[in-house]
Amino acid sequence: MSLQAAARIKRGLTYCVNSWTCRTYCMKKEIIDGLRTVVGESNISTAMAVREQHGRDESMHSCRPPDVVVWPQSVDQVSKMAEMCYSNNVPIIPFGTGTGLEGGVSAVMGGVCFNMTRMDRILNLNAEDFHVTVEPGVTRKSLNNYIRDSGLWFPVDPGADASLCGMAATGASGTNAVRYGTMRENVINLEVVLPDGRILNTAGKDRRFRKTAAGYNLTSMFVGSEGTLGLITKASLRLHGIPEATVAAVCAFPSVQAAVDSTVQILQCGVPIARIEFLDDVMIDACNKFNGLNYPVLPTLFLEFHGTENGLKEQVQQTEEITQMNGGSDFTWAKDQEERNKLWTARHNAWYAALALRPGSRGYSTDVCVPISKLPEIIVETKKDLTESHLTGPIAGHVGDGNFHCIMVMNLADKNEVSRVKEFTNRLARRALAMNGTCTGEHGIGLGKRKLLEEEVGEVGIETMKQIKATLDPKNLMNPGKVV
Amino acid sequence: MSLQAAARIKRGLTYCVNSWTCRTYCMKKEIIDGLRTVVGESNISTAMAVREQHGRDESMHSCRPPDVVVWPQSVDQVSKMAEMCYSNNVPIIPFGTGTGLEGGVSAVMGGVCFNMTRMDRILNLNAEDFHVTVEPGVTRKSLNNYIRDSGLWFPVDPGADASLCGMAATGASGTNAVRYGTMRENVINLEVVLPDGRILNTAGKDRRFRKTAAGYNLTSMFVGSEGTLGLITKASLRLHGIPEATVAAVCAFPSVQAAVDSTVQILQCGVPIARIEFLDDVMIDACNKFNGLNYPVLPTLFLEFHGTENGLKEQVQQTEEITQMNGGSDFTWAKDQEERNKLWTARHNAWYAALALRPGSRGYSTDVCVPISKLPEIIVETKKDLTESHLTGPIAGHVGDGNFHCIMVMNLADKNEVSRVKEFTNRLARRALAMNGTCTGEHGIGLGKRKLLEEEVGEVGIETMKQIKATLDPKNLMNPGKVV
Repeated sequence: MSLQAAARIKRGLTYCVNSWTCRTYCMKKEIIDGLRTVVGESNISTAMAVREQHGRDESMHSCRPPDVVVWPQSVDQVSKMAEMCYSNNVPIIPFGTGTGLEGGVSAVMGGVCFNMTRMDRILNLNAEDFHVTVEPGVTRKSLNNYIRDSGLWFPVDPGADASLCGMAATGASGTNAVRYGTMRENVINLEVVLPDGRILNTAGKDRRFRKTAAGYNLTSMFVGSEGTLGLITKASLRLHGIPEATVAAVCAFPSVQAAVDSTVQILQCGVPIARIEFLDDVMIDACNKFNGLNYPVLPTLFLEFHGTENGLKEQVQQTEEITQMNGGSDFTWAKDQEERNKLWTARHNAWYAALALRPGSRGYSTDVCVPISKLPEIIVETKKDLTESHLTGPIAGHVGDGNFHCIMVMNLADKNEVSRVKEFTNRLARRALAMNGTCTGEHGIGLGKRKLLEEEVGEVGIETMKQIKATLDPKNLMNPGKVV
Repeated sequence: MSLQAAARIKRGLTYCVNSWTCRTYCMKKEIIDGLRTVVGESNISTAMAVREQHGRDESMHSCRPPDVVVWPQSVDQVSKMAEMCYSNNVPIIPFGTGTGLEGGVSAVMGGVCFNMTRMDRILNLNAEDFHVTVEPGVTRKSLNNYIRDSGLWFPVDPGADASLCGMAATGASGTNAVRYGTMRENVINLEVVLPDGRILNTAGKDRRFRKTAAGYNLTSMFVGSEGTLGLITKASLRLHGIPEATVAAVCAFPSVQAAVDSTVQILQCGVPIARIEFLDDVMIDACNKFNGLNYPVLPTLFLEFHGTENGLKEQVQQTEEITQMNGGSDFTWAKDQEERNKLWTARHNAWYAALALRPGSRGYSTDVCVPISKLPEIIVETKKDLTESHLTGPIAGHVGDGNFHCIMVMNLADKNEVSRVKEFTNRLARRALAMNGTCTGEHGIGLGKRKLLEEEVGEVGIETMKQIKATLDPKNLMNPGKVV
């Protein structure tokens, strides 16, 4: 018997009782029956197809299906089932939309996957207080559709139409972060079911102030904890006023340095730029081909400005002066909604555009973040590394935050290529670490970057994180095997 | 023997060896000698006058002097002395500028006060990355003087010229928070000496990215922890571009509701207002008298706009339209630096202006924060409560954040009045809690609001905070008796 199998049996798990074709060790029938009693017959599944759907995200980590999937309808159900898992030593894996990029939903030790999509109410919209509360089934786009008439919006935009509670759990950010911040700055309060079933409100029940100095910042501790400390069942979010006017533009540069210098100067001048996205020549080429566009194949910035009609004029004028001083091209404009959508669709399709470079390939998007002054150096070195490693990895990034992605495009059947990609992503992360950066600006640690996290935060840092994990999740049941 | 005395002796402390007049229990001579070996003769004191200076802040909590005060010169000295304290079970109390308002420096269990002011280097100023690192002796004003020529500034401004590491420890904010955020949003990384002397870099050594998704957010856990988890020995801060132009204005309103409605509408319109400060009629009257001004004695907003010359015109025009729609007076302008200084000096002198209402009195500034929509109701109720309680408590607040202060002015010799103030501040905090608010927006929990914190975050919240405290400070030596 394998060590893993022995460990599972010690936890009270036995061979699968559900299907004679199933070769994994599965959960005791009485635990599954207990869960069924809580959520009802139509909200639980042990079907292999369903479990496999829940055992992987959009990363290249292999599928590790949970033993059972449940769809709770209320926080009380989540609490009851967590308690059951706790007393039976069964792992819990929270699941939002499965759009993660670091294997966060992988059930590496089996257990119960909590699919949270059927808790999908939007509560307490309060326009005067710029505040709303959402359950975990509410996605970014569904919230913005719902609140549009209030004159408000929620700006954090990682590209995918992810669940907002999942975005809180992973500390998501994206294209608008340079102006509006990441989830860390926009989550006000969380309702969390702790591993033993107790319900915690990180800032106190129903509290929704803009700031507080009351006690330890539990909200920030759970934001970005990747489901390893508890199950988020509600998030209170800070909303922002929809800008009166929006305009977007594209500008090409003779070099990466010129694009980054422009970015730094735009920020130093206090232009409240809403989006400033970098695409390298390979990425632009891919976008051109995929979207039928014909931007110059050069390092490029996609820009977006939010403000009043008059304010925009000034923002744009200041920005254009800066980009032209740095040798940038004239702006290509996208003033109306349709043109803007086309531009940002091209940016958000970067993933598919990259995949289309090599039909039949799989993608893996890795990300790092460095001090903005180090961006030209790291991008130039990384492009050299890609060439030397014979790898395809177009670069797109949130340059105003010093954050960028290499979208690695590979043939999964080519073991040598896959292993070169793994080595490359580790080198990229270590290059970021050597430049005072972080091994992940927004994708998280998940399964793949645990070793890198240790290098990033050092011995005392990782010990402290492990202490927190052991304190809040003493049985290591919450999304085990991730982060620490 | 008192219980406290017994506990102190159990911790290895004995009667004072320094002075026959000292009636407190003091630390063993060999511990003091050990500390002296680390910092040198000129950086340690057991003189009662010095200890008393370090046993109180600007609150009305009574003086509780530490047994000894040390002035470390480096993180290694801090680490060595923390280790000594740890192995001898002696409490540690960090001390910055002593400008706290909730008794945070009070040595309620005796111990060693670490006065951090002699570690005062400014390190790694990097204008391209909007980044600087400061040691704990660097104050807000000294940093801004130092970096002025770089075109950058650090905007968090609690009024007092506090130490920046102290501001990080207490999660300070102030007048600019509505636009630039509080310490929580502007601290990038902290170097912290843990109770046992180990050195933690909350985001990893020398890291200074704008965002990260790597592991638990240790930085946010220490920001606002009020010295109860560790000693901050370095803070990496996010800087901002000095605005091209600044203009300030004053506007009076017929009612609190009109002033708050204006504020909400200004924010909803996306005016990037830099400061929006509310003063009630009593506060304005006090400011007029103290500063020789003659503003109308009405609910008033002090406003400040940052931007380009053109941008300001538009911000001001939008704001004026809104305030006039709400019955506000014409703006009184403060366009040049001197006029602006006069205006903000009046605001920052609010404390002294309040005290001058009753010469010879003592002040106590209490603060709460509520959802902005609840501000009119809580301010009206609070003013009624003040009248009914026969108390003087002018109100000033960071209205854009829903945060306000009552500056309680009282005769400390009048026990009945002091007790009425205490009851009033508890009622005020509970009123804020009942309106989904927090018992403190920026002053912290310290000694005085521990019971209120429990009410605010609930049973599971306080248990979780206690678990964190017990994990990181198992012997309860870091600033004991505060927060939890």
